[in-house]
Amino acid sequence: MAEKEISKAVIARLPRYYRYLGELMEDGVERISSNDLSVRMKVTASQIRQDLNNFGGFGQQGYGYNVKYLYTEIAKILGIDRQHNIVIIGAGNLGQAIANYANFEKRGFLIKGMFDINPRLIGLVVRGIEIRSVDDLEQFVRDNDVQIAALTIPKTKAPEIADRLVSAGIKAIWNFAHTDLVVPDDVVVENVHLSESLMRLSYKVCSMQDKAEEEKAEREKGKS
Amino acid sequence: MAEKEISKAVIARLPRYYRYLGELMEDGVERISSNDLSVRMKVTASQIRQDLNNFGGFGQQGYGYNVKYLYTEIAKILGIDRQHNIVIIGAGNLGQAIANYANFEKRGFLIKGMFDINPRLIGLVVRGIEIRSVDDLEQFVRDNDVQIAALTIPKTKAPEIADRLVSAGIKAIWNFAHTDLVVPDDVVVENVHLSESLMRLSYKVCSMQDKAEEEKAEREKGKS
Repeated sequence: MAEKEISKAVIARLPRYYRYLGELMEDGVERISSNDLSVRMKVTASQIRQDLNNFGGFGQQGYGYNVKYLYTEIAKILGIDRQHNIVIIGAGNLGQAIANYANFEKRGFLIKGMFDINPRLIGLVVRGIEIRSVDDLEQFVRDNDVQIAALTIPKTKAPEIADRLVSAGIKAIWNFAHTDLVVPDDVVVENVHLSESLMRLSYKVCSMQDKAEEEKAEREKGKS
Repeated sequence: MAEKEISKAVIARLPRYYRYLGELMEDGVERISSNDLSVRMKVTASQIRQDLNNFGGFGQQGYGYNVKYLYTEIAKILGIDRQHNIVIIGAGNLGQAIANYANFEKRGFLIKGMFDINPRLIGLVVRGIEIRSVDDLEQFVRDNDVQIAALTIPKTKAPEIADRLVSAGIKAIWNFAHTDLVVPDDVVVENVHLSESLMRLSYKVCSMQDKAEEEKAEREKGKS
């Protein structure tokens, strides 16, 4: 973990650096200049240098960045060099999609259990992970040193389950429920609000359409 | 659509306003002051006034905001008062989760079709939506006036499918594949990169842990 405070904006960009560096490693690239990385990532080289300077001189003038070293250091900063135990609450399609995503495990996120209230789902096994009754949640969290819970349940159920998770000692909630959770200061929440994402997309599409229509109108005005 | 340019940061916050206003309407609240909204949304009243002033005087001094009016205006700005036709490419768990989310339809997002390459999925019906072969993608997009495509497929397949969608006239891609798509300027992309979200969560958890450990060490140093 870096000593000094790193801005939220930089942290938010780190996973994308991590992905590109991982792809470079897969391609057998050992070193890369900020200029070459800039072309690949479509951000300016100066932004890249500024961002990565936060972690103290990974790059060397005329030599570039050591891809593997940078990849490893970013992993440390993001804490994905450690193991995180996860439970998924809500074994519907979204919960199962997460359970089936093997890449999470490669990055140290170990799915220990899944939970649901639906008796037809309880007892089923998804990629080796048994779906359990929500009644057993607290005991399981304590017994398995679970830090993170993914909430893939309707928003009406989310606050109660969040309270139970916090009481059981969970430290982080990955919240897919479409509501803002109220948790103590030492519990972190990362929201994935899919309908908000879709609305942003809608806004962009409509802006683009309006712009195209205005331009068309301008052109026709010019002709007449 | 508003006449003047609205900053990206404000646009990014609008869906959250929309959600809170929708909940207020469900609770039968007709008017709300920026102060009351501030308490509910846990942002400052001045931020709320600044954000909503972008759309020209929705609020009145001493009267507050008209909830329904504001809700309707934000819907117009976001373009969710219009109908958007969507297809989902990739009928796995994530694709099915999106197809099953009825709230999208309430906001004007109509899922017209789902596509997959897996013969065992093709022909199945999810909430009235038939899963079709990807071979029929272009024709279907043209015949059904589809604007938006949700990509819930592996990153290796995403660039090729994105190219085909763009050729078929799609205007927006809701991209769940863990890669950055290259599209023409008049096509918009909204990314949902779940593993990046999980890494941000990991960072927050680790920062919190490190902070707690430092504080503990400080306290123990103080005692000795």
